[in-house]
Amino acid sequence: MPDRAVVLLSGGLDSYTAAAIVKAEQSFELYALTIQYGQRHAREVESARAVARALEVSQHLELPIDLRAIGGSSLTSDVPVPQDRDLEAPGIPSTYVPARNTIFLSVALGWAEVLGAHDLIIGVNALDYSGYPDCRPEFIAAFERLANLATREGIEGAGFRVHTPLIRLSKADIIRRGLELGADYGLTHSCYDPRLDGAPCGRCDSCLLRARGFREAGVPDPLLLR
Amino acid sequence: MPDRAVVLLSGGLDSYTAAAIVKAEQSFELYALTIQYGQRHAREVESARAVARALEVSQHLELPIDLRAIGGSSLTSDVPVPQDRDLEAPGIPSTYVPARNTIFLSVALGWAEVLGAHDLIIGVNALDYSGYPDCRPEFIAAFERLANLATREGIEGAGFRVHTPLIRLSKADIIRRGLELGADYGLTHSCYDPRLDGAPCGRCDSCLLRARGFREAGVPDPLLLR
Repeated sequence: MPDRAVVLLSGGLDSYTAAAIVKAEQSFELYALTIQYGQRHAREVESARAVARALEVSQHLELPIDLRAIGGSSLTSDVPVPQDRDLEAPGIPSTYVPARNTIFLSVALGWAEVLGAHDLIIGVNALDYSGYPDCRPEFIAAFERLANLATREGIEGAGFRVHTPLIRLSKADIIRRGLELGADYGLTHSCYDPRLDGAPCGRCDSCLLRARGFREAGVPDPLLLR
Repeated sequence: MPDRAVVLLSGGLDSYTAAAIVKAEQSFELYALTIQYGQRHAREVESARAVARALEVSQHLELPIDLRAIGGSSLTSDVPVPQDRDLEAPGIPSTYVPARNTIFLSVALGWAEVLGAHDLIIGVNALDYSGYPDCRPEFIAAFERLANLATREGIEGAGFRVHTPLIRLSKADIIRRGLELGADYGLTHSCYDPRLDGAPCGRCDSCLLRARGFREAGVPDPLLLR
């Protein structure tokens, strides 16, 4: 029996690739968790379902946690999503969602403990990203430490490990690695502010980072070939 | 303008007392957060509303996060709640909810950041308790550290502090302190497995700890005088 691992799957290309890398390297049985957090781009949840199927996960759990009740982000309120931002500009943009990865990892931790899994996978990246504090290696290390104090498994058992295979990769390298592993990026959705027909806006941080990644990787984005 | 603080309010007597203590000592404006987590004793949420009114909080946010989707606890599944347990027995009982306080504190952290609050209050207690790992001081210290790496406010601003005024008190001392501050424990609910009419079972850990606390404090429990 392979060990189980819980992967946070958003429907974007990073979490898909992170899951594919860890699965290829360590033969985990994957359990995918998608949080419906009231995000403006709820369309990504449909992509998460398609990605979960492609990854042949054993279970895909979609859990609603309505962060619009809290707001504080252009992804969970009526504040407009910034367009055509300089990706190298310092500071944290309005698309930052307070405590998002802390909340998501906490739920993943609880589910992992119930499943008897010791491994969590998250597709955070601290290179081609928007400067969100909860994507950095020091955050992940602190969460791993917390996980092993917070739980029965952490204090009585083998404990938990958080896998972040993308954390130091460029977007182009993420895409190259995913394509080597057979990832179908046509299944994914990255845009923060999609049009009514679901098409990416092409101007939010997430679209810009994705476009730069495909350009630097020298391959076309299958989403734009449709 | 007083500073704001977010308090996790369950409807039980610990979170009520923790909020009352910190409010009395530091004059915070309180924002109360109650998570409807699919707990067997959902009745406690009604008590949380009454406690929030008694505390004169500025806002009471009730957020559903259905942890029955994950299960793994007698509070969120059909596993029976243990009765008449030896409270000094080693080990963690089945009422432990995997990652519960990590999830709840994470949401409180996100809301605090949006509110411009730097203070979180949680009524954890590591003396008269059921041995849950996420009630211990080392867990709280690790969460505080995480909070200050996870957020914009943590890395650019004044950061966050987690207040645990009960962590080293006995249940009797908690009750005495609360009564001094005017807490009306008749508003609270502690039982994990209430009868259909809402009356406490008298046999779960939470009822046993509460009864011992009132006995040792030498005062009657107003809930049992009705």
